[in-house]
Amino acid sequence: MKKTALIMAGGKGERFWPRSRVNLPKQFLSLTDDGKTMIQLTVERISPLVDIKDVYIATNENYRELVKEQLPGLPEENILCEPVGRNTAPCIGLGAVHVASKYEDGVMIVLPSDHLIKNNDIFKDTFVKACEVAESGSNLVTVGITPNYPETGYGYIKYNKDACNNGSYSVEKFVEKPDLETAKSYLADGTYLWNSGMFVWKVSTILNCFKEFMNSTYNGLLKIKDSIGTDDYQKVLNEEFPNLESQSVDYGIMEKASDIYTLAGNFGWDDVGSWLAVGRIKANDSEGNVINGNVVAVNTKDCIIEGAEKLIATVGLRDIIVVDTKDATLISTKENAGEIKKVLAQLREDGNTQYL
Amino acid sequence: MKKTALIMAGGKGERFWPRSRVNLPKQFLSLTDDGKTMIQLTVERISPLVDIKDVYIATNENYRELVKEQLPGLPEENILCEPVGRNTAPCIGLGAVHVASKYEDGVMIVLPSDHLIKNNDIFKDTFVKACEVAESGSNLVTVGITPNYPETGYGYIKYNKDACNNGSYSVEKFVEKPDLETAKSYLADGTYLWNSGMFVWKVSTILNCFKEFMNSTYNGLLKIKDSIGTDDYQKVLNEEFPNLESQSVDYGIMEKASDIYTLAGNFGWDDVGSWLAVGRIKANDSEGNVINGNVVAVNTKDCIIEGAEKLIATVGLRDIIVVDTKDATLISTKENAGEIKKVLAQLREDGNTQYL
Repeated sequence: MKKTALIMAGGKGERFWPRSRVNLPKQFLSLTDDGKTMIQLTVERISPLVDIKDVYIATNENYRELVKEQLPGLPEENILCEPVGRNTAPCIGLGAVHVASKYEDGVMIVLPSDHLIKNNDIFKDTFVKACEVAESGSNLVTVGITPNYPETGYGYIKYNKDACNNGSYSVEKFVEKPDLETAKSYLADGTYLWNSGMFVWKVSTILNCFKEFMNSTYNGLLKIKDSIGTDDYQKVLNEEFPNLESQSVDYGIMEKASDIYTLAGNFGWDDVGSWLAVGRIKANDSEGNVINGNVVAVNTKDCIIEGAEKLIATVGLRDIIVVDTKDATLISTKENAGEIKKVLAQLREDGNTQYL
Repeated sequence: MKKTALIMAGGKGERFWPRSRVNLPKQFLSLTDDGKTMIQLTVERISPLVDIKDVYIATNENYRELVKEQLPGLPEENILCEPVGRNTAPCIGLGAVHVASKYEDGVMIVLPSDHLIKNNDIFKDTFVKACEVAESGSNLVTVGITPNYPETGYGYIKYNKDACNNGSYSVEKFVEKPDLETAKSYLADGTYLWNSGMFVWKVSTILNCFKEFMNSTYNGLLKIKDSIGTDDYQKVLNEEFPNLESQSVDYGIMEKASDIYTLAGNFGWDDVGSWLAVGRIKANDSEGNVINGNVVAVNTKDCIIEGAEKLIATVGLRDIIVVDTKDATLISTKENAGEIKKVLAQLREDGNTQYL
């Protein structure tokens, strides 16, 4: 069966300010030493399984040109611009009807555009298996991540280790972000995975799920499907999409459906949730620093310094993040990196939107 | 007797990098909220005692234009440019022969150009008294600073509290920078002052001291004196000045002379030795920060942030100094501010002299 991929690339990614901006979110940034952007790496990673002409990018009009620039081999009609954001269920539904209008049926791999994977071979092998499980019936397959610490910022997938199907396990339930004690018990239990938002299913399977669990959304999606390839497409999309129920696929479908399987991804996944991730991803020097750009560091340890043109000189710093750009410089402790959003809130309040 | 002033403004002041540069040392920077530069404040402070036409600025050719720009009322011939730096004794000698060529005798007040004084009235009153003591005989007068903590970075003046002359005390000796225990004993003793490099004497007195204690320098100074006002001045200066003994006035004259008196300066003196001084000098906000320029500070306490045009956003910082300029940004802990010179050493080593 034909393999296709939907890569979700509509996110704003404020947590990489000031490198990321409203007009240049995280998925279009390079945060690795190889200089490739996150979305480029995502497409490259799936390319052994999916031909570029069967890759769809879900985004919005603001980022259409960025997608074209960064993915020059992608057919332009595969850039799916949502008129408004309606969470992941309508986004996935839009991708599904595009695939369905091109192929009678097909396997659909759904991936975020802004995660990093260390081992692409294991990633490929995992998704080969996931595709087999998806093709073998009306199964919804999600690839979870084996947790290695009790993270409280992710949802978890509880699976039944006795119900194995070609290396995948039957999912018992999806659980919300836990408190620390609960997260510790999940880790000890050994049958919980992090929910990473990566899915595989047949298009026919997911559309049947929309029909069953999100019926009005399903009807809207069918109207959009009928317009694909016609002059009316943009008009119909603009009319129908905003009326689709704003809902996550986890809540709208996964938590309601049966026949859900999960595979444990052990391919070095990182959701690159903040500047702290750069300390894990990029090469560290002997002092524990990640330093790039025009920087002179004196007595500086365990810092992340992303310089640009201007000279950045640091003295005596420990565990500090410095990110320089043409018009703004961020200086934050690693510990307080989560408060970067307060800077953006302040800028909005002050009307300094040029920096957002 | 005519009062004159020699303001020494040849220093390089690396410790205020990146605001200070080779071509813009500390004395030409504004480090106070009023926007006036240190040398402007120095001239303003002495103006109740000395007419601007009797103020001499000792500097070098690199800074001649800066002096002209910042002190437009100063006669151009009062800018004394040393061909090479030869420490304070020849510098003071050069000032002395300029005054001596203009007036038969006069009182000469010698001041650094890069210290700050909180209370100008007390400063004036102190120097009025110092002038009286200097005029009353062949006295060398130094204005010391009453210490309020055991500083190990300054030299000290030991005076005899029983030998009082119009509010001034006879100096017993000058002592080098002490270790901490010694500094504590000086503080406890109560008859030690910080040596701040501020002097008052008659021109005839100091020239007699040169004659007695630095005779070859004295002879060179006389040759320069004879050329003042002639077409040969620059030629003679260039020939003679480099041959003068490179010596501090403290070691070359003060430690050898008798009839030395000191007055205790209690006018809120600050030698503005590093960026830390800005935290003492400028207004602090409720979080203990000094913040200027284009800055958004989130959860930031006890920091000094001197922004410029580019937006500086800080998150979670404590006791950090940030100084932004057009081409370089310094980020240093307060604790390690003394290591800024290592940045300059690194820049020199790398050949990045454009930042010096």
